Amino acid sequence: MSRYQLKHRHRSTAATQASPHAGGPSSGPLTSEELQLAGRNHSMPLEALREDITPAGLHYILTHFDIPHIDAETWSLRIGGAVSREIELSLDDIMARPAVTTPVTLECAGNGRSLLKPRPLSTPWVLGAVGTASWTGTPLAPILASSGLADDAVELVFTGADYGIQGGTEEPFARSLTVAEAMRPEVMLVYGMNGSPLPPQHGFPLRLLVPGWYGMASVKWLASIEAVTGRFEGFQQAVAYHYLQGPEGPGLPVTRIRVRSLMVPPGIPDFFTRKRVVEAGPVMLRGRAWSGHGEIERVEVGIDGEWMPANLDPPAGDFAWSGWSMVWLATPGEHELRCRAMDSSGALQQTTQVWNYQGMGNNMAQLVHVTVR
Amino acid sequence: MSRYQLKHRHRSTAATQASPHAGGPSSGPLTSEELQLAGRNHSMPLEALREDITPAGLHYILTHFDIPHIDAETWSLRIGGAVSREIELSLDDIMARPAVTTPVTLECAGNGRSLLKPRPLSTPWVLGAVGTASWTGTPLAPILASSGLADDAVELVFTGADYGIQGGTEEPFARSLTVAEAMRPEVMLVYGMNGSPLPPQHGFPLRLLVPGWYGMASVKWLASIEAVTGRFEGFQQAVAYHYLQGPEGPGLPVTRIRVRSLMVPPGIPDFFTRKRVVEAGPVMLRGRAWSGHGEIERVEVGIDGEWMPANLDPPAGDFAWSGWSMVWLATPGEHELRCRAMDSSGALQQTTQVWNYQGMGNNMAQLVHVTVR
Repeated sequence: MSRYQLKHRHRSTAATQASPHAGGPSSGPLTSEELQLAGRNHSMPLEALREDITPAGLHYILTHFDIPHIDAETWSLRIGGAVSREIELSLDDIMARPAVTTPVTLECAGNGRSLLKPRPLSTPWVLGAVGTASWTGTPLAPILASSGLADDAVELVFTGADYGIQGGTEEPFARSLTVAEAMRPEVMLVYGMNGSPLPPQHGFPLRLLVPGWYGMASVKWLASIEAVTGRFEGFQQAVAYHYLQGPEGPGLPVTRIRVRSLMVPPGIPDFFTRKRVVEAGPVMLRGRAWSGHGEIERVEVGIDGEWMPANLDPPAGDFAWSGWSMVWLATPGEHELRCRAMDSSGALQQTTQVWNYQGMGNNMAQLVHVTVR
Repeated sequence: MSRYQLKHRHRSTAATQASPHAGGPSSGPLTSEELQLAGRNHSMPLEALREDITPAGLHYILTHFDIPHIDAETWSLRIGGAVSREIELSLDDIMARPAVTTPVTLECAGNGRSLLKPRPLSTPWVLGAVGTASWTGTPLAPILASSGLADDAVELVFTGADYGIQGGTEEPFARSLTVAEAMRPEVMLVYGMNGSPLPPQHGFPLRLLVPGWYGMASVKWLASIEAVTGRFEGFQQAVAYHYLQGPEGPGLPVTRIRVRSLMVPPGIPDFFTRKRVVEAGPVMLRGRAWSGHGEIERVEVGIDGEWMPANLDPPAGDFAWSGWSMVWLATPGEHELRCRAMDSSGALQQTTQVWNYQGMGNNMAQLVHVTVR
């Protein structure tokens, strides 16, 4: 951990809550700060929805601070706190453990934020803050078990090497999970992505992977895991990533991914507007649907407000998206296409916004304008 | 080439010139169209300037239309037009030819566009539309020679598989080079990037690489090369990518990369504003400098308006950036840092904007605001 943290860790809750930087809304135009964040934090272009596994350079990225430069040779992961045996693991130690490779869909909790009115001020995602990679790593639970978690340990705090200031608070990026969530069998420490070492922007050399949860839980550049006997109150856990109706908390924490479907925009684009032009006749519409709350049970496509069921493929994995498709008989004129999914918890995407103060979990159904000729 | 081109190729110069989509300026707020383009087209985060070779997922991307999905097994490159022998090459044919691997810096001609006032309406790059990859491919000249270019051939037209509408014109992305430029020994057909096959977003399975030129010349998803006996008048050649003072052409075409330097922002960032906080004392400032017009001769760092020479490393390759560094003795307070480079043609980056209508080649010196504590 850098000298900054030791010397300057501080917290200004008043500043945080009053500042738009903590997620306050704006009805004004997009700011230069938001533009900088849009340039740094990559969306997945929606045509990449055609791929089961998103090519690494097309997977979305959200990096709160700078991408750290880490030497894997000298890096290690420290596991301590309320444990009977502190552990320090090298990357070789972790790679020598039983390996699992599995496709997992990750989505940023802020996906869709820029479409909310008024617009919460943070990374102004449109709809592409998603991706599915084939991750390789080792389950976390046996490692935690070998450390001897104390009986009074209630959470694990996962701390990354990325470090900076957000909402007046200076901290490394850190998130916690309850012991029960952290011990789930699908939670992993991962070092591989699509058959290669993690790229720097995805957490090289090691990140946490929490399938089913929005991406903030899958802490990148993992430096330490600390068992704690009280609730972790770091900024990214206690202030950011909450469903709020105004600047005052506490609100409900953001956890699992809300059900969503997206479609590959059909036909050809206009460069500037991204509006689509399609030839009349049968058009294969297709996309993906996913949820952290259960299996996808149904996907429907709306053509000018009339909903029709799509064909649904089996999911690419227990925590990965499902493909869907539907043939649309396109007739000349202007059309509005939508898609919406329902998961096994009964949650269904809405076509009107469900606003919140930080712009979290906006799974409003996608709308695609198409000119058929 | 798709059926769209055959049936609907058309051109509306009036619409193109009148439309802001062709690059007209705005003094108004950022539009939702620009935001969509910022989300699709990835910048390189400036902390990646510390790497000689940019990791593939961090290299900038500009895709005018959709990223095409190409099956390398059935793909081929057709070379025809004013040649004595038409050629069709498979990927295996091209990979069987002599291979060269070389680092080359590519930059989008629109890099820095969003900093211009008024702001030309197109992809609103801040400063990160750059990257250096290690490219693997084979020189183009021997292939052209084997096709028997006609004596009256004046240009080669390079056409990609990406297709759509821009400024009222519906076309595949296509650019030309004069025969003399195309025959330069450094011009290559490339199929590898950083030791892997080209990622889809960088032109899989094959792209042109024109070292020294802005990125638009290095046509991706290359489908055909056609020798022509007149000047190519496609949209991306004749309308886009020109230095203009207003909507009327012709202006000068955009060709080689203007001299530029950038620095790794020092210290730690604020998440939202990206403003930097630095500890007082010696701070190693570093970055990269490059030019398509000659070697980098000098890099200077400006601290609150006072310019000092930086140390300059040898370039990473004949057409790749050079590292630079300088120790700054940071004193508490607010500071403005800049860097500027001069190349062997005598061109020097300016600290005031040199505006043009499409926002091309804006190499105004970077400005970094730093708080030292």
